[in-house]
Amino acid sequence: MKTPVTVLGLGAMGTALAQAFLAAGHPTTVWNRTPGRSPELEGAIRATTAAEAVAASPLVVVCLLVDTTVRDTLDGIDLTGKVIANLTNSTPDQARALETTLTAQGATYVDGGIMAVPAMIGRPEAFILYSGDSAAFERHQADLAVLARPLFVGSDAGLAALHDIALLSAMYGMFGGAQHALALMHSAKVPTVEFTEQLLLPWLTAMLGMLPQIAAELEQPPVGQAAGSNLAMQAAAYHNLLDTAVGQGIDPMLLRPMGELLQKAVASGHGDEDMAAMIRLLG
Amino acid sequence: MKTPVTVLGLGAMGTALAQAFLAAGHPTTVWNRTPGRSPELEGAIRATTAAEAVAASPLVVVCLLVDTTVRDTLDGIDLTGKVIANLTNSTPDQARALETTLTAQGATYVDGGIMAVPAMIGRPEAFILYSGDSAAFERHQADLAVLARPLFVGSDAGLAALHDIALLSAMYGMFGGAQHALALMHSAKVPTVEFTEQLLLPWLTAMLGMLPQIAAELEQPPVGQAAGSNLAMQAAAYHNLLDTAVGQGIDPMLLRPMGELLQKAVASGHGDEDMAAMIRLLG
Repeated sequence: MKTPVTVLGLGAMGTALAQAFLAAGHPTTVWNRTPGRSPELEGAIRATTAAEAVAASPLVVVCLLVDTTVRDTLDGIDLTGKVIANLTNSTPDQARALETTLTAQGATYVDGGIMAVPAMIGRPEAFILYSGDSAAFERHQADLAVLARPLFVGSDAGLAALHDIALLSAMYGMFGGAQHALALMHSAKVPTVEFTEQLLLPWLTAMLGMLPQIAAELEQPPVGQAAGSNLAMQAAAYHNLLDTAVGQGIDPMLLRPMGELLQKAVASGHGDEDMAAMIRLLG
Repeated sequence: MKTPVTVLGLGAMGTALAQAFLAAGHPTTVWNRTPGRSPELEGAIRATTAAEAVAASPLVVVCLLVDTTVRDTLDGIDLTGKVIANLTNSTPDQARALETTLTAQGATYVDGGIMAVPAMIGRPEAFILYSGDSAAFERHQADLAVLARPLFVGSDAGLAALHDIALLSAMYGMFGGAQHALALMHSAKVPTVEFTEQLLLPWLTAMLGMLPQIAAELEQPPVGQAAGSNLAMQAAAYHNLLDTAVGQGIDPMLLRPMGELLQKAVASGHGDEDMAAMIRLLG
């Protein structure tokens, strides 16, 4: 028999997680604060309280709105012998504090960060980052693999959230750049789908190839000057980006901080270096 | 015989362009404000004045520091019958104004935006965007192909710069996101090269796949609500990114405008839409 599992929270993501467990044949108990959610979950056992849901399974997957919802929901419940896999969006500090609280209630804690939208759950490109108790993770790794590819990133419970948020931050940066680019094209009535497919995607894909080098220079600062276009040259040319936005009637709000960071790098004597120097300035 | 060409400006990029022409067998005349630059350009004809350099060839490739340098350099020179391909970084408005000026001096004007660093010139992944006089572009397309793959984007002289700057803006957004992500990882002593290769690159590559859909929704707004995580949900979760940065001692400056734009989208009634609505708010 497959491991019985419990899913707390039936938002879009919790529902997708429960569906994946059901599809894989896990006895699946679900609970949601507002009853009657997700009637499409055929075969799920519906618990009337969170405590009843927790009692039903050795593995409890939590996918609620925010950290305080998790705390409110699990407050005072006996978690002895339970593995709590908390996939609720949270910060590293919240994950670490929750581990302390739930461990005191008897649980073994694993934190997770879902790198997927609900529609991607159960599909091969989805992955979930985990951190916390490595023995509990290993015990339930095969169960969790039903949801998405599980990746354990360390025993510090905050590390899954840290990796998750780092990846989301990078994604928002990329989307912000793309949004600005598309706004510029749209302002000039250039067809945006063609621009995206013919130019934007190949260009960004090529530029992604520079990231390993930047990461390497962060670990081991290079000797000597930047090989390509150094920060002083980039800072000097950056105003063209801002001027063009304004000229096209596009708000340059998404571009400004990068210009400021370039200026700061030059002003603090890093003009002949490259991007790794900017990363160090953020810390 | 190959078309004689002139290159004005022997910075890192101008030198790479002249080298590519020389390697392809073009009689190549070069000029630089400060004489004696780039002694490695074997076989180049060195002009002592910009006027002499311009007179030497039907195709004049200009790669100077900024727009005003181009204006100063070509001021008062007879350009009758010359095709000026100006690859100097400039804004769309600067390109359009320069076209007017140089056309009055007798030139046919083509503006270009180089999507490459100097080391990429002559290699297959490099491309140069052109706009302006399409007949002049076609006449010299094979000559210009020696430098990088030539892509003509329209007869409005400003369009090459607009495309160029849109792509650079997108690149800086992506780099900014990656810089923030790497700063977070570095703050937690997570090895950044491994993080980049194992997680950041696959993740950003997967997320790039969402851009055509966003571009399509910009051209044709979808009916009904956002399919995935709508802007209200994203705005509500965004503070986790800012809190995590602060918790790790990382300046959230690169993240802030995206959070502000999400809030603005929700406040103006677009909470149930997705990213295309944010792009419209920028315009």
